[in-house]
Amino acid sequence: MALPTLRIIGFILGIFLITLAIGMVLPMLTLVIYEHSHEIEPFVWASMITLSAGVALILPGRPEQVQLRPRDMYLLTTASWLVVCLFAALPLNLLQNISYTDAFFETMSGITTTGSTVLSGLDSASPGLLMWRSMQQWLGGIGFIGMAVAVLPLLRVGGMRLFQTESSDWSEKVMPRSHMVAKYIVAIYVGFTLLGILAFHLAGMGWFDAINHAMTSIATGGYSTSDASLGKFGPAVHWVAIVLMLLGALPFTLYVSTLRGNRQALLRDHQVRGFLVMLTLTCLLFGLWYWLHSEQALMDALRIVTLNVVSVVTTTGYALGDYTQWGGFAVMVFFYLTFVGGCSGSTSGGLKVFRFQVAYVLLKSSMRQLIHPRAVLKQQYNGHNLDEEIVRSILTFSFFFTVTIGVIALGLSFIGLDLITALTGAATAVCNVGPGLGPIIGPAGNFASLPDSAKWLLSIGMLLGRLEIITVLVLLTPSFWRH
Amino acid sequence: MALPTLRIIGFILGIFLITLAIGMVLPMLTLVIYEHSHEIEPFVWASMITLSAGVALILPGRPEQVQLRPRDMYLLTTASWLVVCLFAALPLNLLQNISYTDAFFETMSGITTTGSTVLSGLDSASPGLLMWRSMQQWLGGIGFIGMAVAVLPLLRVGGMRLFQTESSDWSEKVMPRSHMVAKYIVAIYVGFTLLGILAFHLAGMGWFDAINHAMTSIATGGYSTSDASLGKFGPAVHWVAIVLMLLGALPFTLYVSTLRGNRQALLRDHQVRGFLVMLTLTCLLFGLWYWLHSEQALMDALRIVTLNVVSVVTTTGYALGDYTQWGGFAVMVFFYLTFVGGCSGSTSGGLKVFRFQVAYVLLKSSMRQLIHPRAVLKQQYNGHNLDEEIVRSILTFSFFFTVTIGVIALGLSFIGLDLITALTGAATAVCNVGPGLGPIIGPAGNFASLPDSAKWLLSIGMLLGRLEIITVLVLLTPSFWRH
Repeated sequence: MALPTLRIIGFILGIFLITLAIGMVLPMLTLVIYEHSHEIEPFVWASMITLSAGVALILPGRPEQVQLRPRDMYLLTTASWLVVCLFAALPLNLLQNISYTDAFFETMSGITTTGSTVLSGLDSASPGLLMWRSMQQWLGGIGFIGMAVAVLPLLRVGGMRLFQTESSDWSEKVMPRSHMVAKYIVAIYVGFTLLGILAFHLAGMGWFDAINHAMTSIATGGYSTSDASLGKFGPAVHWVAIVLMLLGALPFTLYVSTLRGNRQALLRDHQVRGFLVMLTLTCLLFGLWYWLHSEQALMDALRIVTLNVVSVVTTTGYALGDYTQWGGFAVMVFFYLTFVGGCSGSTSGGLKVFRFQVAYVLLKSSMRQLIHPRAVLKQQYNGHNLDEEIVRSILTFSFFFTVTIGVIALGLSFIGLDLITALTGAATAVCNVGPGLGPIIGPAGNFASLPDSAKWLLSIGMLLGRLEIITVLVLLTPSFWRH
Repeated sequence: MALPTLRIIGFILGIFLITLAIGMVLPMLTLVIYEHSHEIEPFVWASMITLSAGVALILPGRPEQVQLRPRDMYLLTTASWLVVCLFAALPLNLLQNISYTDAFFETMSGITTTGSTVLSGLDSASPGLLMWRSMQQWLGGIGFIGMAVAVLPLLRVGGMRLFQTESSDWSEKVMPRSHMVAKYIVAIYVGFTLLGILAFHLAGMGWFDAINHAMTSIATGGYSTSDASLGKFGPAVHWVAIVLMLLGALPFTLYVSTLRGNRQALLRDHQVRGFLVMLTLTCLLFGLWYWLHSEQALMDALRIVTLNVVSVVTTTGYALGDYTQWGGFAVMVFFYLTFVGGCSGSTSGGLKVFRFQVAYVLLKSSMRQLIHPRAVLKQQYNGHNLDEEIVRSILTFSFFFTVTIGVIALGLSFIGLDLITALTGAATAVCNVGPGLGPIIGPAGNFASLPDSAKWLLSIGMLLGRLEIITVLVLLTPSFWRH
């Protein structure tokens, strides 16, 4: 790696850290407003350390005329998320009696919008701490959209090239346009957040809870201000959360198209339609099943099921009651839903809907080919030809996704976790969902009691999942470092 | 489907049934020899019914000059296994107080060489019953080798075309050659069985146990004559079983090549080498882990681990002790090993070693492509180019394999089974291994207590797994039945 390349990577990291340091002012303000000023010191320290590191990185200046090659982008992407997490964990570590392992786990879970937590007693926790956790998810959410829209298609990771827009073409010519798309996306993200705050407040939440939950809903993150998660709040809040999570799980580029006048953009999109149809059917059928197997009224059963299903599928991770008590079938359904994920170009994680749809197109065509061996069949998805490269990258992604979950689960079981905790813990981390299954890390549980080594392993899983795995794994191949 | 085609399919089924009816004479002889002649009647009835059905099917005569197209072969293959199972279950149903569901489950598990059992009290069971179970596995084993070598490559199912030999080319010219290969394979299978009988006897088994276990070892089936499975016998028996299972899990076509003078055939084969290296490493490392975590002496620990690992990986399913008592890590390892399987063209099931190796080649090349986007990379495996069709068929297979296990597990959980029983039950059925995990269907358990609907679902899973899934699924597509 050449020195100018390293310098520009350092420069960009520096800018991220300075932004992060400035972001830490918000929890400070929160503490002042809610008269917890005595808890402000850790944030000041954390912010100063982060700012110093950021300034140190930009001091050498930005080298002129350095083009980042794809291989430099892989390094930059992984390094950014990792370095931001390392520093964003500082306030948690300094604020309370939280070990750095716990602080790092909580922050990685926050920034990757996973939502698994090691903290309890949230209802009486410092408002600065709660605000910082929600901000981690909110910043992580918009960060991921940016990466999914602009960086991953360029890197040809996981078939994201199917959704290449002008904004992921980095040539000088379209730069102004791509800047505009980025501004639109940020505006929409902020707009949804503000609407969410208002809606949550109208649904009965206090402003503080409304602000926190709006940030963690639109980011499909799932951190809450209560140990009971959304169980603390009423039905109106649940429906607001459902809508916000869905908004967060749809492709943000399509919102931009809609704003620019293409009113049908969302409705015509195969991924969006498939996603909504799948969710509606699952919620209805599963809701009916739950209604038949519980004491709940029909509307309550549907609401409880819809919230939990939408929460898991959008990889948010709010809980409403403990669905692991609903019996083996429900547990299996939630286990499967963990993998699904939302749409590409959204804040959600998981395998994502378009990969299932592309797989369906390919398999249908494969079956036809078996029956008519000599036919020449073309495969299309959402108006794009499924060329060799896209198919390969989707399959490579799916394979590594499975293997990553498998390896992390094996590691967790080696550390001493039981089969269900290990398997669902690995899955929920890599899919950036939040809760696992079983009594320990289930929706009513907490990751606090896991050994430190398990927390680090799960943190790696969350990072891998958030960066669509390949982006990180490429760095581990010998040929990446050759020359 | 044209009438002449149906007639020839019926004719071939008829021949299978007549063969089956004749095969039922062997358990009758066993009963006479072991002075259980009073139990002979059910076999006589079953044999007569099967014979009548077979004769009825061949009576219309074999139509001349009908060429079976690939789509006819799919139907023939699935129909053969299903019809044979339906009739092979008769003796069990007639012999004892066994419901037809249980008889069918046990037979499907036998003929697919899975080895899951609903029977207990095997140590005092009728010798005719035990002999018939072992014969089901032995016949199923050679039947599957024939299918894997001759039929599946032709049908382009699951990438088996990588191992296309002369015997899977059905043109007139090479027919004499392919007949010879078939004869060699049968001779080798019989030879290994006879050697196995002798070896088991020398290792301390009585002749009856030796005959049964030799048949179920070489078929990688796993039925035993004792409820304690191989736990009833001593270390020498265990090592004989390990060698026989390994012989059953290697490609039989390579034995033929070896016999024909190509002494290096087995050692030079990538799949065989990968399989043996993987097994050796797993047994050594896992054996050391078990030694450190148990009271066993080193050699005993290695023997116990090797027997159980080889039994699961070759998809045999013998048990030696209850490894689910070894803790979460061991359970996870055995769960993963369930999927591996042996080599293509052997009697074993599962994903099979070559598919992992091909995946590795493809993934390595995909990663390189990401770093060098403009490079033109060629992928080879075992001297074959990995062309588009082979890659697609392997990936299609792997996908359907996963989905099939997922759907069956979901069905089992809907019936009321817990997550571990449902997940590992589905996996062990589709991979044709035998035991699952957990207290109910684990290596110390038994499938008897499952509801009937679960037994039928698992039977479907075993059949799907044995026929490499696609062979059956093709029949369910609408385009198969069009025209």
